[in-house]
Amino acid sequence: MTDTDSVRIRVFSLNCWGIRYSSKQCSQRYVMIADMLCREEHDIVLLQEVWSEKDYMSLKKKLACSHPHSHYFKSGVIGSGLALFSKHRIHDTFLYRYSLNGYPYMAHHGDWFGGKAVGMAVIGIGNLTANVYVTHLHAEYCREKDSYLPHRVVQAWELQQFVRHTSAGADIVILGGDLNLHPQDLGNRLLMSYTGLRDSYLETAKFDGCEDGITLIADNPFTNKKDLVPFEKGIRIDYILFKGSPKTDVFCDSMSTTKGSVPDQPFPYSDHETLTAELRLESHNLPGTGRDKSLKDSATGKLAELVDIVTEARTEVKVGLHCAERMRYTAQRTGVMGVALLLLELAIAAVPWLALGAQQPFPSTSFYLLAGLCFAILLTTTMLYIFYTMEVKSLQGAEDQMRLAVGSLQEGLRGFSLAQALNAQRKPPGGLSACNPEE
Amino acid sequence: MTDTDSVRIRVFSLNCWGIRYSSKQCSQRYVMIADMLCREEHDIVLLQEVWSEKDYMSLKKKLACSHPHSHYFKSGVIGSGLALFSKHRIHDTFLYRYSLNGYPYMAHHGDWFGGKAVGMAVIGIGNLTANVYVTHLHAEYCREKDSYLPHRVVQAWELQQFVRHTSAGADIVILGGDLNLHPQDLGNRLLMSYTGLRDSYLETAKFDGCEDGITLIADNPFTNKKDLVPFEKGIRIDYILFKGSPKTDVFCDSMSTTKGSVPDQPFPYSDHETLTAELRLESHNLPGTGRDKSLKDSATGKLAELVDIVTEARTEVKVGLHCAERMRYTAQRTGVMGVALLLLELAIAAVPWLALGAQQPFPSTSFYLLAGLCFAILLTTTMLYIFYTMEVKSLQGAEDQMRLAVGSLQEGLRGFSLAQALNAQRKPPGGLSACNPEE
Repeated sequence: MTDTDSVRIRVFSLNCWGIRYSSKQCSQRYVMIADMLCREEHDIVLLQEVWSEKDYMSLKKKLACSHPHSHYFKSGVIGSGLALFSKHRIHDTFLYRYSLNGYPYMAHHGDWFGGKAVGMAVIGIGNLTANVYVTHLHAEYCREKDSYLPHRVVQAWELQQFVRHTSAGADIVILGGDLNLHPQDLGNRLLMSYTGLRDSYLETAKFDGCEDGITLIADNPFTNKKDLVPFEKGIRIDYILFKGSPKTDVFCDSMSTTKGSVPDQPFPYSDHETLTAELRLESHNLPGTGRDKSLKDSATGKLAELVDIVTEARTEVKVGLHCAERMRYTAQRTGVMGVALLLLELAIAAVPWLALGAQQPFPSTSFYLLAGLCFAILLTTTMLYIFYTMEVKSLQGAEDQMRLAVGSLQEGLRGFSLAQALNAQRKPPGGLSACNPEE
Repeated sequence: MTDTDSVRIRVFSLNCWGIRYSSKQCSQRYVMIADMLCREEHDIVLLQEVWSEKDYMSLKKKLACSHPHSHYFKSGVIGSGLALFSKHRIHDTFLYRYSLNGYPYMAHHGDWFGGKAVGMAVIGIGNLTANVYVTHLHAEYCREKDSYLPHRVVQAWELQQFVRHTSAGADIVILGGDLNLHPQDLGNRLLMSYTGLRDSYLETAKFDGCEDGITLIADNPFTNKKDLVPFEKGIRIDYILFKGSPKTDVFCDSMSTTKGSVPDQPFPYSDHETLTAELRLESHNLPGTGRDKSLKDSATGKLAELVDIVTEARTEVKVGLHCAERMRYTAQRTGVMGVALLLLELAIAAVPWLALGAQQPFPSTSFYLLAGLCFAILLTTTMLYIFYTMEVKSLQGAEDQMRLAVGSLQEGLRGFSLAQALNAQRKPPGGLSACNPEE
């Protein structure tokens, strides 16, 4: 090829499972990870669950030679856990915190405290501008009865919005991380269809790793086999996604994952498997000659599919909205009962004859315990009411945006059908710009 | 001009001061606003402080003919208060919630409950794609001792990041709203310098409005003159900003504001003045021939100024960080004291001889009151500790991003100086791409 420049980059992603004093062999695993990254010298390293800033700082120190540029994305109470290391200069970073991310009172799940987010870095690779995203969505604790599903769907919705709206100026787009979504899950379909991102596992010319590309596998000594039921071998929830631009084509030449163990090491790097993708970037000297699939494929079929997916997501969000409204109503009703109880107590204490003939005055111990209980109920329900109101607002907001998006996509679809009908009459092939979901 | 298409659009912005049952003449003012918008038929209407969704719905109904497309941005507990009406199709919307926005316990200021944010809408105007932003930053309650300054600086930082990263694909960019920033305030300089947005008041060919373009004026019967001290006449905190793209030039032909009263009406539309800007969009048939100032002016001087502004912002964020850390420490210390008090009380109750010779056993009334107090202290300090930790994380995150940005800008500056030196030797003029702050 004479009019194209070709660049190869290697992208790495790993959920490090870095909960200090809780994750098994945490510090030893970080040493193994740092050694491997130092040796392998990937161009871009995307890490999740680096919960402690100290661990990030120690990685940064060890990778100073191989990866001179890095960024740690801070968010929530504990931090987002997201870290990025790069051989190439990071020009700019930006963080988007998801509006919904579990519940603070579900402290044992801990997601709320992590302040889940998507981090973005603008990285210069030669003459190309790469927008690199790293993210970690809300965990799935019970697939059968997943109370966090609406939250994860909204996170996937916000992720696709963020990637789509911030990547217009980029030559290439790379997204890596633990999406906590199976390949055919609604959130994943939403993300891939809307952004035009391609899955390196599905696109690679050469693959070396676990069957079906699974990244949370039963063979890993750190995973709990019970959590994987009914998926005996494991699940694929970690991804490296990419897309090019009209100026640059991207191809995945090879992709690999670890398989539950690391040669010459007593245990794996993490409870998740590592992902490595080798991407070939072909930039055209003549802009506008790009052949990137994501831009070529935006035809009627894709658009109709997208309408279906967004509609499905909207339904899921509506279910979540219904739950959140019910929870808010329960908090409100309990609060009102707390107030009633307090008033009743005060009335009994103030007017002794109200105590229905009881001989003794209101015992002070019971009085204070009951008053304390009433105040505790009031405080808790007030905070829950505020929290659920915020959840309702976020879900309503996402639903509004989805409704608007469906309307706009359907209009595009109508425009496209009309253009096709006209073209069929006139013959010269028309442009796709009016109905490109990338717009 | 033969190779350009020209389009004129009118943009309107108003802080509606729509607090139901609290703002004076709220419902009557909404009727006046709706009538005026219906009559004037601006292309794009950006409203802030539309706190009640009912008011939005009523506006939407009344403006159904003049502005068939609209969006209400939901956020926080009350809502962001942001609404957008348009004569042109809205293709897509997106909301970015600022990571910092006051304190929940400052309920009388109410900003935290509003969930301040920036709303974006992708609007198709003819063949052009307009990215339209509406926002409302944290209020300034005391200019001399402004404890919210770091929050507002971080909001301005996140606003410029959001606009910069999401507007690459747009032909024109319009931002309107109540920034709660004076023209020379740090946050405003940060926003304007980094994004290249231009101020319609400063750029307009024709202006009709209050002296110095002030939008919160002493002559308005709803404003409290005391709040404006030492600015006797008023302050300019509402803006309509814009910029073009390489494909499209934007000019502001005229700009106007109300002057504290409305002809034939008993009172003004709001405590803020309305802003109307008439923009002329000139799109070039040959892309790449654009002459937009924001792109032309990205020279060394601008870059050096930007480095200074970001450094100043970083200092302000560091001050905020110091305060937040001190507050978190205070919460932590008070919590520890609460625990100590509770343990002491339990010890005294359990082991009577600890009561230092007191004849009576621990009186149960005092016991329960004290225990209740201890629990209240513990609960409050725990919540404050969590809140301040989130504040610290957000401030640290912003500071990290600013440090990285300054590094990248300085590198650009060095590259630019080098390129200039080389050009001086070689003569043929070199490109600016390596140091364009827009990258």
